[in-house]
Amino acid sequence: MTINIKNFFSSYKKISKMGDFQELKDIEGLQVSSVSANLYKNGKDDLTLFYFPEGANHAVAYTQSSIVSESITWNRENTKNNIKALIVNTKNANTFTGTQGLDGLDEIAKTLIDSLKKIESENGYEKSKKKDLLFASTGVIGEKFPVEKIKTNILKLVDNLRIKQNKLIWLKIASAIMTTDTKPKVAYSEIKLGSKIVRIAGIAKGSGMIAPNLATMFSFIFTDADISSVVLNKFLNKALTNTFNAITIDSDTSTNDMVAIFATKKIKNKKLNVSSSKEALKFEKALETVCLDLSKQIVTDGEGAKKFITIKIINSETSEKAKKIAFSIANSPLVKTAIAGEDPNWGRILMGIGKSGEEVDPKKLIIKLGDFIVAEKGKISENYNEEKLQEYMKWDAILITIDLKQGKEEYECYTCDFTHDYIDINAHYRRS
Amino acid sequence: MTINIKNFFSSYKKISKMGDFQELKDIEGLQVSSVSANLYKNGKDDLTLFYFPEGANHAVAYTQSSIVSESITWNRENTKNNIKALIVNTKNANTFTGTQGLDGLDEIAKTLIDSLKKIESENGYEKSKKKDLLFASTGVIGEKFPVEKIKTNILKLVDNLRIKQNKLIWLKIASAIMTTDTKPKVAYSEIKLGSKIVRIAGIAKGSGMIAPNLATMFSFIFTDADISSVVLNKFLNKALTNTFNAITIDSDTSTNDMVAIFATKKIKNKKLNVSSSKEALKFEKALETVCLDLSKQIVTDGEGAKKFITIKIINSETSEKAKKIAFSIANSPLVKTAIAGEDPNWGRILMGIGKSGEEVDPKKLIIKLGDFIVAEKGKISENYNEEKLQEYMKWDAILITIDLKQGKEEYECYTCDFTHDYIDINAHYRRS
Repeated sequence: MTINIKNFFSSYKKISKMGDFQELKDIEGLQVSSVSANLYKNGKDDLTLFYFPEGANHAVAYTQSSIVSESITWNRENTKNNIKALIVNTKNANTFTGTQGLDGLDEIAKTLIDSLKKIESENGYEKSKKKDLLFASTGVIGEKFPVEKIKTNILKLVDNLRIKQNKLIWLKIASAIMTTDTKPKVAYSEIKLGSKIVRIAGIAKGSGMIAPNLATMFSFIFTDADISSVVLNKFLNKALTNTFNAITIDSDTSTNDMVAIFATKKIKNKKLNVSSSKEALKFEKALETVCLDLSKQIVTDGEGAKKFITIKIINSETSEKAKKIAFSIANSPLVKTAIAGEDPNWGRILMGIGKSGEEVDPKKLIIKLGDFIVAEKGKISENYNEEKLQEYMKWDAILITIDLKQGKEEYECYTCDFTHDYIDINAHYRRS
Repeated sequence: MTINIKNFFSSYKKISKMGDFQELKDIEGLQVSSVSANLYKNGKDDLTLFYFPEGANHAVAYTQSSIVSESITWNRENTKNNIKALIVNTKNANTFTGTQGLDGLDEIAKTLIDSLKKIESENGYEKSKKKDLLFASTGVIGEKFPVEKIKTNILKLVDNLRIKQNKLIWLKIASAIMTTDTKPKVAYSEIKLGSKIVRIAGIAKGSGMIAPNLATMFSFIFTDADISSVVLNKFLNKALTNTFNAITIDSDTSTNDMVAIFATKKIKNKKLNVSSSKEALKFEKALETVCLDLSKQIVTDGEGAKKFITIKIINSETSEKAKKIAFSIANSPLVKTAIAGEDPNWGRILMGIGKSGEEVDPKKLIIKLGDFIVAEKGKISENYNEEKLQEYMKWDAILITIDLKQGKEEYECYTCDFTHDYIDINAHYRRS
């Protein structure tokens, strides 16, 4: 998907509304189920189970916040390498719930282990243990964790497990992990490793603009490939840099963010243990594509957001510097309101560069909006054409490029605009 | 002024609207003048001159941005210790204006020096030189600097100079430096140093919420005391920490921010050269009071802002840590929309603490809204009373206190809420 295309955003939205999602296929070795545990009190599915009958390797990345959900604390204390199940609840973040929230997870774990006994003994699967479970919670902080409601629904969740996932099942599951998202987020990729086809299916939740309660972002990715947890961890961390870690909606960070990848080992592909091998690079690339697709879906689902913004910093001394400048621009309410107002106010972009505190050479740097150079040599471009720029600013996807002319590194990040009355007051200042 | 008072904000606004500003007195050794140079094309005064016939000592603090206005560059290159004049223009930031902007200041300086010759020779004042001048510009970035318009009006500006400033003159001058501020900002203090009364008069500009174009903040402070530039610099930097550096509206930083203090040396007070002397502490305190007053006026003038928010971090290991946590909360759109929606959503405050990345002990920390403890011991307070809190959230000034229970240091910062449709979508999530 090239993002610098006129009307990218609205066609994207249109596609999504029509339910014309990417076709996701079935991941062997994964079973899924979702029910309403009445956490939302409106019948919406709010409790989800991912079950790996024969176990899965995994890797997980958590929020950088210094205060985290009890669900994350529980995982860190209990979960080992082999995963049998991931349980996701919405509506309650299980954060700042004290021992009630932490002990509650023990109870739920026990109930789940009991409920799985029957299918495990009937099918000769290994018995699930506490250390094989993983929890993810999203919703309001500080409210009592609804342990009883969840426990009551575990058996139903197990009874509903589906061995195969078709497109509709994936959408149902992706919807069940949503809070205020307006649409489910799914992405899929498949590649050949040697003679074997392996599949990667991912879902995500996260809402844009000013987020619901804490803008918690989840992504769960599943592959049927046979990859060790150590190698998965390496792939995941590499993929995050330019995908989930490259998006910003309102600069806030949740106590509950979590991205996890699971490998069911059902496809006996060639072992991937050297990340620079041809096969490893292929998998890495495919995983990054899935993550980037989901990241962009999160940005486009911003409440009130009308434009998808890409900020690209090129020719930087280091990619860290490029990243710092990119986010300084992406997190600026002034830049985002100007874009919502379709005003090519590049002064605000310049302000964003400056406030990063990173050393730049104003005489060297070039600022571009789309293909148009707006500023260079320390002043407005001699070819500056307000009319053409105003036309460009009507596009649904806006590309801001900053050429620092200091080195060879680069970084690209993604955000959306700030719309509403907020804008009426602020967007047209420069023309007043 | 105690800020944790119900309806502080609306009474503040009311007072300001009625024009019932603090009474500012005349600073001996300062002359002022403002005219419309038609920069705004609506007749509003937009060009201001502060003239010190017998010179003034001074200290100045500029923006931390790595890209700055040509006016700041000019000052850094030319201005020495003795100041004869400060020229302030609005509407154009003189940033990214290349050599046109920098050379233009040379021309304006020359015109001003010529225009002052007559009064200087008639009154036996020392002649103004290039190195005695200081410039300040605020407005749009990257547009041609209106050198001719400014030059044309310099003589008129000099002819209009007033030797005495009464209350109305101060308001006229404070209005002339405004961009989208809705009201002028003035503050005053006087103290006795030995047997002499010295006066401190300050004005400021800066608009809140999402700012006009770059939220440039100016403050110019004048005293008739006899204080060296070195000591003024020490006082100013000390005062900034808990005043102008303790406010945030939308986390953006201008390329043009500037705070300056001028001492006309007309009152022959006891020399202030040791900052710990009783007299020095008295002056320091008075200056901080003026700066804090102006800072709070900037926050209360936020576009659309309805609440004044104080964030106080206590019992921190270091004040740096306290400051980082305070600003992490103050810059969170999620916290600010919740407060606009009058929702005591302390989970967002907790998120703000967490996203600072600073190490805290969740089991120890106490979160208070006003006098109410909302969370402690790692969970919601046992005395949590939603009804009382909702009543408190209707107040115009909200105090958030975080007790880290880790040390003895503290930091307090100030911000306003985020209002409008922005809020309709987001503020009531927790109650839905």
